[in-house]
Amino acid sequence: MRTQYCGDLNSQHTGQEVVLCGWVQRRRDHGGVIFIDLRDREGLVQVVFDPDRAEVFARAEQVRSEYVLKITGRVRPRPEGTINPDLSTGEIEILGLDLEILNAAETPPIQLDSHAADASEELRLRYRYLDLRRPEMQARLRTRSRVTQAMRRFLDERGFLDIETPILTKSTPEGARDYLVPSRTHPGEFFALPQSPQLFKQLLMMSGLDRYYQIARCFRDEDLRADRQPEFTQLDIEVSFMSEDELMGLMEGMIRSLFSEVIGVELPDPFPRLTYAEAMRRFGSDRPDLRVPLELIDVADLMDGVDFQVFAGPAKDPEGRVVALRLPKGGELSRKEIDGYTQFVGIYGAKGLAYIKVNEWAAKGREGLQSPILKFLPDATVEGIMARTGAVDGDLIFFGADKARVVNESIGALRVKLGQDRGLLEGEWRPLWVVDFPMFEHDPANGRWVALHHPFTAPKDEHLGLLESDPGACLSRAYDMVLNGTELGGGSIRIHRDAVQRQVFKLLNISDEQAEERFGFLLKALRFGCPPHGGLAFGLDRLVMLMTGAGSIRDVMAFPKTQTAACLLTDAPSTVDEAQLKELSLRLRTRA
Amino acid sequence: MRTQYCGDLNSQHTGQEVVLCGWVQRRRDHGGVIFIDLRDREGLVQVVFDPDRAEVFARAEQVRSEYVLKITGRVRPRPEGTINPDLSTGEIEILGLDLEILNAAETPPIQLDSHAADASEELRLRYRYLDLRRPEMQARLRTRSRVTQAMRRFLDERGFLDIETPILTKSTPEGARDYLVPSRTHPGEFFALPQSPQLFKQLLMMSGLDRYYQIARCFRDEDLRADRQPEFTQLDIEVSFMSEDELMGLMEGMIRSLFSEVIGVELPDPFPRLTYAEAMRRFGSDRPDLRVPLELIDVADLMDGVDFQVFAGPAKDPEGRVVALRLPKGGELSRKEIDGYTQFVGIYGAKGLAYIKVNEWAAKGREGLQSPILKFLPDATVEGIMARTGAVDGDLIFFGADKARVVNESIGALRVKLGQDRGLLEGEWRPLWVVDFPMFEHDPANGRWVALHHPFTAPKDEHLGLLESDPGACLSRAYDMVLNGTELGGGSIRIHRDAVQRQVFKLLNISDEQAEERFGFLLKALRFGCPPHGGLAFGLDRLVMLMTGAGSIRDVMAFPKTQTAACLLTDAPSTVDEAQLKELSLRLRTRA
Repeated sequence: MRTQYCGDLNSQHTGQEVVLCGWVQRRRDHGGVIFIDLRDREGLVQVVFDPDRAEVFARAEQVRSEYVLKITGRVRPRPEGTINPDLSTGEIEILGLDLEILNAAETPPIQLDSHAADASEELRLRYRYLDLRRPEMQARLRTRSRVTQAMRRFLDERGFLDIETPILTKSTPEGARDYLVPSRTHPGEFFALPQSPQLFKQLLMMSGLDRYYQIARCFRDEDLRADRQPEFTQLDIEVSFMSEDELMGLMEGMIRSLFSEVIGVELPDPFPRLTYAEAMRRFGSDRPDLRVPLELIDVADLMDGVDFQVFAGPAKDPEGRVVALRLPKGGELSRKEIDGYTQFVGIYGAKGLAYIKVNEWAAKGREGLQSPILKFLPDATVEGIMARTGAVDGDLIFFGADKARVVNESIGALRVKLGQDRGLLEGEWRPLWVVDFPMFEHDPANGRWVALHHPFTAPKDEHLGLLESDPGACLSRAYDMVLNGTELGGGSIRIHRDAVQRQVFKLLNISDEQAEERFGFLLKALRFGCPPHGGLAFGLDRLVMLMTGAGSIRDVMAFPKTQTAACLLTDAPSTVDEAQLKELSLRLRTRA
Repeated sequence: MRTQYCGDLNSQHTGQEVVLCGWVQRRRDHGGVIFIDLRDREGLVQVVFDPDRAEVFARAEQVRSEYVLKITGRVRPRPEGTINPDLSTGEIEILGLDLEILNAAETPPIQLDSHAADASEELRLRYRYLDLRRPEMQARLRTRSRVTQAMRRFLDERGFLDIETPILTKSTPEGARDYLVPSRTHPGEFFALPQSPQLFKQLLMMSGLDRYYQIARCFRDEDLRADRQPEFTQLDIEVSFMSEDELMGLMEGMIRSLFSEVIGVELPDPFPRLTYAEAMRRFGSDRPDLRVPLELIDVADLMDGVDFQVFAGPAKDPEGRVVALRLPKGGELSRKEIDGYTQFVGIYGAKGLAYIKVNEWAAKGREGLQSPILKFLPDATVEGIMARTGAVDGDLIFFGADKARVVNESIGALRVKLGQDRGLLEGEWRPLWVVDFPMFEHDPANGRWVALHHPFTAPKDEHLGLLESDPGACLSRAYDMVLNGTELGGGSIRIHRDAVQRQVFKLLNISDEQAEERFGFLLKALRFGCPPHGGLAFGLDRLVMLMTGAGSIRDVMAFPKTQTAACLLTDAPSTVDEAQLKELSLRLRTRA
């Protein structure tokens, strides 16, 4: 129906007759002529109707915002002085020769100009089809489409096969709550929607398919925190006969080519790698934002003798940690700002936030420091802190002292917040791999081991013995890719031996019976010639969010759900007929 | 871990040292040496271990079928007379230098050699990961992956955006039974899994995204007939501002390039088009298999006066139909074969199958015909039949006479069966478009109109008036792509005007209230500037089945379900805890 997209026109088309289809962004009547800004997927162009063509002019007069038009016209240069350099089509305009109103439009409930983003998110979600007309939203969906396209091309070229795995399946082992689907043909039984294709992709390796990928929909029925969705998408990958080094090299190559191709960003080659232990030690996090040039510095050894229980207690506790965090030029912080940060670390369970302001250390030594805790610290401790942090006049040193977990979470978060608040970020994109994760974490509440990744993650070959003797020291063959403090993806080399898998289940308190019931088919498959294999998964929504600079994964999904897992557009979920429930052998429970 | 795939080796690699990983297809001990056929995704290669390397030889002796091995060896030509021309690697063999057993294997419950297909389908589904080791199954999954790859490339190059639509959504209007997903956060409410992304893709057009595609999972909770699956995959497409001719041209171009690229088949350009009326008239089907050179020939006008109620009744009934089907050389059919076909048409509701054998018409005229019904037919009728069918000596003419629906279904199916049984198929691939479908069919049982496609299908512009005056005569802007008697895909230009949509709902007996509840969001969206749009969907499973020559869609899916919608591999569906049901505000209904 059209000859060109509106947004593709420029002065090269001057003199051509074109047919355009699109939406009315704006109509203005000025100096006896009508100006219509016509919008399509590619952009805007200005169309001018003059009264010479009376019939067409009359139709143009009926036009309102968001009407759908088909316009025939001739491209001509804009008159001197009316060129719009902000618009790709700004050097030209279309002289309207004919106009057909393909559809009318009521006044939209959200504005579609630059003020659109001001509408409440509720309104935007309810009228999603209008919200998606905004160029910003369209650009995000286009980037998403280009990202998956580039991923697929990269993987296709390297012999990966795109294989679909079931959505109606059995409960999978990620540990979050499953969405259930009642079976009509098997009354009283349920399918689960997959939290990931984990077991199926492992089975595909046992099938000898060697290199698998899928852009897979995954489901978790969780209480939605800040930026989660009930259904999300991951790029899911699994390979056989490949070491973690090879796989990590391949995957960072993919991410590099993606960034280069889609947003013109060159990421480092290779990505730096940090062990879990080093990441926790230096950044208090296993997904450190390397753009922040601040580090946690252990000072427990300087504190264990001080007469200040807040420091000395954790310093002496094998599960405790005491760290300093030097903030260059932190002396500028006001009392109020420091109070704000004290509140902030409180969110992560820190009971306070000690600090030392370094006013004139060079000239005055101890007298040049300012701190409510200074009185508790002997000279040697103060000198040790100053030497180890390298603090200079004008700096501020924060302290965290508590159980290691609390210190890592609170001071790790403070580190990132200070980096952002104080404009300290260095470099725009700072990817890395985190490796050498522990196999297990000890859950003191239940007195048992829990898997840090999932129970199919292989221990390092040389740590196999530790499964028996010292599970807490056993490192896994897992790896996470982190970008700017966000986990982009993660995976592991998997257990490919039946005996090891059973041993890990046992450590995780999964009885033989439970293992058989939940994972029996996998355990059986391991006995029929399972190759060494491993893989990983990238969170597509989050990746695209980072690449587009969107504020939420909701902004990179066409039809997201709300925090209560509802779709405001379609009003899903909704009630169903009694007859449908009966077919499914179900009854509603009357609410308590 | 490997230097090459087994199946990629050939005489060009002679002299090279290679590292291979794979499965033991077979081990033979012969003349003091051990032969291992090692298999990976790309094929088989023969590895020879001789006793000179005692330690390696000893390990080779432990090896059994389906063990997973890593083998280092040197490529050498096979000795004269042992070349295997059936194997891509048949000119060479590997002299085994080292062997590592990566994993052992129990004896597999299904054979993985050429007898594998003899295993029961139940066993194959239960041990799907073993079944998928068969080269035949791997080839199908690879073809499937290449098909989607080629589709995506075609569409990406033409500016289509790959956009994901929700799986947890609202009941969609395809009319089959929905799979339901109970909501935990909205007690008593349910999501439905989509039967197609129909409404979302229309909304994306209203968003101005202009060209959408998705390889989308769809769900139908139906009693599974011969070759259906609870979840299936479709290539889903929608465009704005495009006529059906443009869209059909684009889509057949895609299918042509797919066939050419993936299986080296050149389909005709353009595809022929048949109207629904012509397809029904000539083939009794709206998805005719054009490879069968037989046609239904209307003879009601010759029969309406005969003294044989079986023919005369339908001939006079406005809803009846009487056809002849000439089978060249059908005179060869035995009485038993004809009885078989009589039974066959019975499946489709035909109460009998009349026929005339043309023995010696040329020489003897009427006396040269043989038929139990001949006595009922006057000379003029016989002569009319002979003239109209063009039957010659040696042929057989079948007859169908009943309600048109029964005749079309039974004789249409007979036509295809005869074509296959008698080896009459002409040409290997015979695609076509069927167009000009009626908007509605009358359902005499309920005395109302039902949509032949779905209720969003647009009527032809020039038939808009018929919606009011004569709905049965109103043709739609729908189109189906048919290949060798299978519907590959179908779609339509959609209704883009609110008023027309309401009118169609009304005709379909959908009350304003129902329309509002089920499709309110769509009706509302139509009022805010909906562009003219249309699209279609291709059944991916069926397409790949045809392209690979597989006998069932189950053979082109990695993890299909059984006829009772169960997964034998994972034992899904399965029971869940009472606590899970309680969270979902559900209770099991005790069985009646």
